[in-house]
Amino acid sequence: MRWLRTSAEGFENAFARIVRNRRESDTQVGRDVANMINEVRERGDDALVDYTARFDHHRLSEDTDWRIDAADCHAAYDALDPELRDALELAASRIRAYHEGQLPEDRDYTDDIGMRLGARWNAVDAAGLYVPGGRAAYPSSLLMNAIPAKVAGVERLVVTTPTPKGEVNQLVLAAAHIAGVDEIWRVGGAQAVAALAYGTERIGKVDVIAGPGNAWVAEAKRQLYGVVGIDMVAGPSEILVIADGNNNPDWIAADLLSQAEHDPTSQSILITDSEPLARQVEDAIDVALMRLSTAKTAKTSWDGHGLIMIVDSLDEAPALSDRLAAEHVELMVDEPQALFDRLRHAGSVFLGRHTPEAVGDYIAGPNHVLPTGRRARFASGLSVLDFMKRTSFIDASHAALAAIGPAAVKLAEAEGLPAHALSISTRLK
Amino acid sequence: MRWLRTSAEGFENAFARIVRNRRESDTQVGRDVANMINEVRERGDDALVDYTARFDHHRLSEDTDWRIDAADCHAAYDALDPELRDALELAASRIRAYHEGQLPEDRDYTDDIGMRLGARWNAVDAAGLYVPGGRAAYPSSLLMNAIPAKVAGVERLVVTTPTPKGEVNQLVLAAAHIAGVDEIWRVGGAQAVAALAYGTERIGKVDVIAGPGNAWVAEAKRQLYGVVGIDMVAGPSEILVIADGNNNPDWIAADLLSQAEHDPTSQSILITDSEPLARQVEDAIDVALMRLSTAKTAKTSWDGHGLIMIVDSLDEAPALSDRLAAEHVELMVDEPQALFDRLRHAGSVFLGRHTPEAVGDYIAGPNHVLPTGRRARFASGLSVLDFMKRTSFIDASHAALAAIGPAAVKLAEAEGLPAHALSISTRLK
Repeated sequence: MRWLRTSAEGFENAFARIVRNRRESDTQVGRDVANMINEVRERGDDALVDYTARFDHHRLSEDTDWRIDAADCHAAYDALDPELRDALELAASRIRAYHEGQLPEDRDYTDDIGMRLGARWNAVDAAGLYVPGGRAAYPSSLLMNAIPAKVAGVERLVVTTPTPKGEVNQLVLAAAHIAGVDEIWRVGGAQAVAALAYGTERIGKVDVIAGPGNAWVAEAKRQLYGVVGIDMVAGPSEILVIADGNNNPDWIAADLLSQAEHDPTSQSILITDSEPLARQVEDAIDVALMRLSTAKTAKTSWDGHGLIMIVDSLDEAPALSDRLAAEHVELMVDEPQALFDRLRHAGSVFLGRHTPEAVGDYIAGPNHVLPTGRRARFASGLSVLDFMKRTSFIDASHAALAAIGPAAVKLAEAEGLPAHALSISTRLK
Repeated sequence: MRWLRTSAEGFENAFARIVRNRRESDTQVGRDVANMINEVRERGDDALVDYTARFDHHRLSEDTDWRIDAADCHAAYDALDPELRDALELAASRIRAYHEGQLPEDRDYTDDIGMRLGARWNAVDAAGLYVPGGRAAYPSSLLMNAIPAKVAGVERLVVTTPTPKGEVNQLVLAAAHIAGVDEIWRVGGAQAVAALAYGTERIGKVDVIAGPGNAWVAEAKRQLYGVVGIDMVAGPSEILVIADGNNNPDWIAADLLSQAEHDPTSQSILITDSEPLARQVEDAIDVALMRLSTAKTAKTSWDGHGLIMIVDSLDEAPALSDRLAAEHVELMVDEPQALFDRLRHAGSVFLGRHTPEAVGDYIAGPNHVLPTGRRARFASGLSVLDFMKRTSFIDASHAALAAIGPAAVKLAEAEGLPAHALSISTRLK
């Protein structure tokens, strides 16, 4: 963990370095992934069998080794502790309600010259969701990825997930049942992403691939962008808490640790105008770490990437926050709206002292798949739009074409494209 | 040019091959571009000087070699033939009006448990537009890329364009004046894209890069996706004309050639249920080619990639069209809406006999930057959304947190993330 003071000498250099260092992809991973994609493209299922044996110690031979069927998901759902089942259902219904509000409206209008113009949205035919295995297999993540796809209207929603040594996460299966996933394949890693993009003998290809994964999965998605649509390039999780002195340090400590416990490379940052609060938060983190089962990861992350920034005034916070363009920003102040109005770049913002980021991870409704690594400068969280595309349309009468066609002919001629000009002028003869 | 009949033996295999063959990126280009990006990242302006001398035979030494200033653009605008200026202004105003209708609405509501939820849209701070030099420098393309960025609210809009041997396209400068471009740099190729993404001593980096370019430019954008946002991976242009027998073959010939004249790799396809019409179109193309200044390119494209598909009934057309997922689809029939209702995958659709695709290239209003290479399955045309991003937000009262927080605690515990649970439970104590 590191302290910075905006009033200290050398602040700008130190801060600029932190902003710049939000990570790059690894060249060796890039080469390995390119080879794996080629293998899957050329050898199809045989390549999947080999990689799955090697990386997941799982043998794909019988059909039941390849797929988890709907009955298994239903059984996992039925076997859930009722309280947990209710929690998953509540989360699903709130996520569904929020994302239904994102459905875009078609446009269809006739303008002043009598030309009909518009745009129509459609869902993609098929979407793939990558679901990590092992430690990072989160049912909440499945809901957050699958529900927007289904709300968008995707007919075929395919999950791929590694099942190391054959092990299956029952919570994830129950979430798949709730979300209405159509197929689940027991394949993981970059090879699964390649299979979704190009298809194999068994696995039909999809149009869009979403979902979190390790560095290999992320790199495979990056390389296959363009062959399919992808949700985004995801990096380690980040939280930025902006807090005045009038806060319970235990609350802030828990919030910072809730990102730190995700991964050793997660980053938690506190910006405050109160050094006493900052000291109390630091102490509260040490206390909390003593009883967390995730303390090892959280401590590694906090020690390595944690940052406390002391500002003279919280007025400085929005500009610093925009430069960090963090995935999650908490505003722990009396008038959070005033600060929020001054923020431009953030994945998701949590207003006020009673809005811990974790409520957004699970149950509030907005998506928890958000841009990391300063990508909130240009990217948005996952939404129904990631599973849809827009077709524009034009419907011209002869009169409408006559009204503006000659100007288009003029432009086509100026650009040296005579067939363009001809296609209009021949209709106006 | 090739003929296919859906009723003929072997149709499915032949058609599947055509669908599959819509092109891939070249590995050697990939390696060259990766090297160029690294060079620009490490050596900044020095690398730009070297590449620009080598590829564009233009020496970047004085400031005036590097930049084209606003006064030059204004002068180019003033010097335009008045008719051409009016045509550009008409195009700009219609493009602006259409894209203003795309501006997304923010969401801000309080749900049934008293939790405030929403999403707010912001423009990116800076956008870069690549504008090709030489033959493919189109003022219409500048308008189509720049206007959505400005309508979105982008403050800093930067153009990079190669000026081979120092030559500048006056039409493009005039269009830049109309669109309100803020900076123009005389740099092209993959090196320009790298400069926009990472910044150099002179060129400030941007958040999103849009605009067409050759294979190197497209590959650079693909590789830098994630470092910046990009509009899309663009390939050769395509048109699909679906026509009944009751059409003027000259019109269809002109429409097919209007794509073919873009590039030797463009693809023009006719689907019709009338073999006599198809024969007439073929003849009309031969006739038109005799008088087009772009005949060489158009003929190469038509001979190499042109396709005429004879169907028994136009009822077959929507399914074939969706598999091709073409950039442009013309519906030259009496009831185009009925066919349009059955299409799912197309970049833009042109309804009826009086809507040549070229009217959309220049002046109708919708964007002419559209998904190619079957990417209309998952991608949309350029819009204001490409220059904006969304920040979701959550504002919970203590009562709202108390209502749903316990379910989130349950889920966090089930996922083995105790700090997540703690951040909620500590507020509910």
